[in-house]
Amino acid sequence: MGYTNLDHISSTPLLPEVKTAMIEAIRRDHHNPSSQHRQGEEAAAALEAAREQVARLVNADSPKEIVFTSGGTESVNHAVKGAAVANADKGRHVVTTNIEHNAVIRSLRRLKPDGFTVTSLSVDDKGRVDPRDVAEAITPQTVLISVMHSNNETGTIQPIEEIAAIARERKVLMHTDAVDSVGIVPFDVKRVGADLVSFGSNAFGGPTGVGGLYIRRGAKVFPLLDGGVQENNKRAGTENLIGIIGMGRAAEVVARDLQRRYDHLKRLRGKFLAELPGLIDEVIINTHPVHSLPHLVSASIRYVEGESVMLMLDDEGFGVSTRSACATGSLRASHVLLSLGLSHADAQGTLLISFGVDNTEGDVSRFLTALKRVVGTLREISPLYKKSAGGA
Amino acid sequence: MGYTNLDHISSTPLLPEVKTAMIEAIRRDHHNPSSQHRQGEEAAAALEAAREQVARLVNADSPKEIVFTSGGTESVNHAVKGAAVANADKGRHVVTTNIEHNAVIRSLRRLKPDGFTVTSLSVDDKGRVDPRDVAEAITPQTVLISVMHSNNETGTIQPIEEIAAIARERKVLMHTDAVDSVGIVPFDVKRVGADLVSFGSNAFGGPTGVGGLYIRRGAKVFPLLDGGVQENNKRAGTENLIGIIGMGRAAEVVARDLQRRYDHLKRLRGKFLAELPGLIDEVIINTHPVHSLPHLVSASIRYVEGESVMLMLDDEGFGVSTRSACATGSLRASHVLLSLGLSHADAQGTLLISFGVDNTEGDVSRFLTALKRVVGTLREISPLYKKSAGGA
Repeated sequence: MGYTNLDHISSTPLLPEVKTAMIEAIRRDHHNPSSQHRQGEEAAAALEAAREQVARLVNADSPKEIVFTSGGTESVNHAVKGAAVANADKGRHVVTTNIEHNAVIRSLRRLKPDGFTVTSLSVDDKGRVDPRDVAEAITPQTVLISVMHSNNETGTIQPIEEIAAIARERKVLMHTDAVDSVGIVPFDVKRVGADLVSFGSNAFGGPTGVGGLYIRRGAKVFPLLDGGVQENNKRAGTENLIGIIGMGRAAEVVARDLQRRYDHLKRLRGKFLAELPGLIDEVIINTHPVHSLPHLVSASIRYVEGESVMLMLDDEGFGVSTRSACATGSLRASHVLLSLGLSHADAQGTLLISFGVDNTEGDVSRFLTALKRVVGTLREISPLYKKSAGGA
Repeated sequence: MGYTNLDHISSTPLLPEVKTAMIEAIRRDHHNPSSQHRQGEEAAAALEAAREQVARLVNADSPKEIVFTSGGTESVNHAVKGAAVANADKGRHVVTTNIEHNAVIRSLRRLKPDGFTVTSLSVDDKGRVDPRDVAEAITPQTVLISVMHSNNETGTIQPIEEIAAIARERKVLMHTDAVDSVGIVPFDVKRVGADLVSFGSNAFGGPTGVGGLYIRRGAKVFPLLDGGVQENNKRAGTENLIGIIGMGRAAEVVARDLQRRYDHLKRLRGKFLAELPGLIDEVIINTHPVHSLPHLVSASIRYVEGESVMLMLDDEGFGVSTRSACATGSLRASHVLLSLGLSHADAQGTLLISFGVDNTEGDVSRFLTALKRVVGTLREISPLYKKSAGGA
């Protein structure tokens, strides 16, 4: 029996073109791009070609504005810590939201012993922050605003253009964690307007362990990795060239196919959302109906445990997630879901379904059938469900 | 005409077994190891298998003492910054040497605004530090000693066992940058005795952009990358699984073949060092005659520019280096060579030749012939050489 991956928010499969490019890079066996002889120059050329591919995906002014990192988490750490510390002479206050990824939250926490304070804004019940709240939170000491572009647990997209405009007007650096947006939704750094944009390769068919950080020319940011002068002196360390070549190729492919991919994902999600209510009652959809990623649904299925649903679906051959893959190992309820106003019980019953371009409408139908069966089985043994809704 | 790579200190070619393992990993297309469904579990199993391979290479007590990083530079940044900041409550003083890699030097510089002071020790004319100097430099405020295992520009190996014994006795954390040692010379973390050991994969036939950090159980070190709970909560971010699988396989192969590889490299270097003086006069060998890596020679060829020699050798089909590949882009003379007591002129005339297991004695002979020709040509147009030695 085949296995149907509906957990693309945790990782997308490598695109066939990416596999080919990476295998070719392995066979070619590039030298160190910083070496100055012929072999080094060949490696450097491959590196810079990938940088151009990635720069085009986000419409950067120059490939020099792209720094390759070891993934979205490094990009976020680099942006948040590097911007805060580099501008500490101007002030030590940061504005962010309650629903950021732990990479942002914990990076900010790391700054506290250095005297930084953080204003963390709340969001509405679909996970959106109000730009006016951002404007109000800015003080003369504010040196950084960090608001994620889309949330990895709800799919909700923030009004980043408006927030970035406020940041620009108030002359505060603006970072957006766009790990789950770049390569999925149209993303133009000039239109978005943020000074710093974090993204990863495995959100859009590239390998894990490779990411990008867009640093607008002139933005003052310290490196996170100190050492050699790689990456235009912005990030030390010999580059992961095989991975970067894969990321570059993925960027090229998704830039070309973005609209087609987007439409397909949105169609799958639309079918799921349209048919779900007829099959399972008492489900809260946490994803914003308009401002959201095309491929992700966060559904809090009341009176069941998300973890149990996930494991039973796994047995039935469907891979879904209960929450951020980065947070496994932690049993606490998701801070994101609690921020939407969900109860602990409903947060625990939350399933993350994220479609991929290889999924079909048939996958959605088969999944809905399996989900109905699994939830039915679990609710049958749930006294809470019987008492509340099941008896109606 | 073939090209002969004699620049293995910048990067080694991928081992054939590594290529096979990485290509297989790409074809298999692992999911995110942190995902809790079947696909995630398969990825996690591959990750942990690689961790065991790497743990065995350095003889760690437990695979849990190995953290995968994006390479030697991240490992060093993590160890140095993470250990210093995590122990700042005990004191803010670090002991190091004048010949460390820039990853160490610049990481320490980054700590200065936080009130850290650094004692940097000088070395002898073969680049060795005296353990007694380390002992004397320790103060009650010292929280970290960072001394590299082998130097990437001279190949000289430090008396790390003695220094680590002093650190242990004085209850100070000890880090060693072993990026150019692990996988090349026998390396047993228990015998070496350091609490923190940084290493990279591409020193021993694995891919670039992947490294390891050994953190002895109980050593207090903050993460450099904050976010998810990956890597036993020591390093956030979805792992570069394809690269890590490659590193694991490389570790397994070199652990098995270490002595044979070592002997071969030493034989090539021995031949080079034995025949060089009969072909070219006025050469200073900066590498320690006994305590050194088997494969690297640092030779300061007087009255020529190392860069010119390197470029002419490149034209003749030989890839060598003039200094650390991480330092290209900087035209200043190497801080390492100046620390040995070399003049600026001699430092500029320094060539780094580093053999690989695929090199043959024939390569050495052909290279010596080419080197004699290139140096002869350059010295012919050097007024300094004619005045000084050439006229003799």
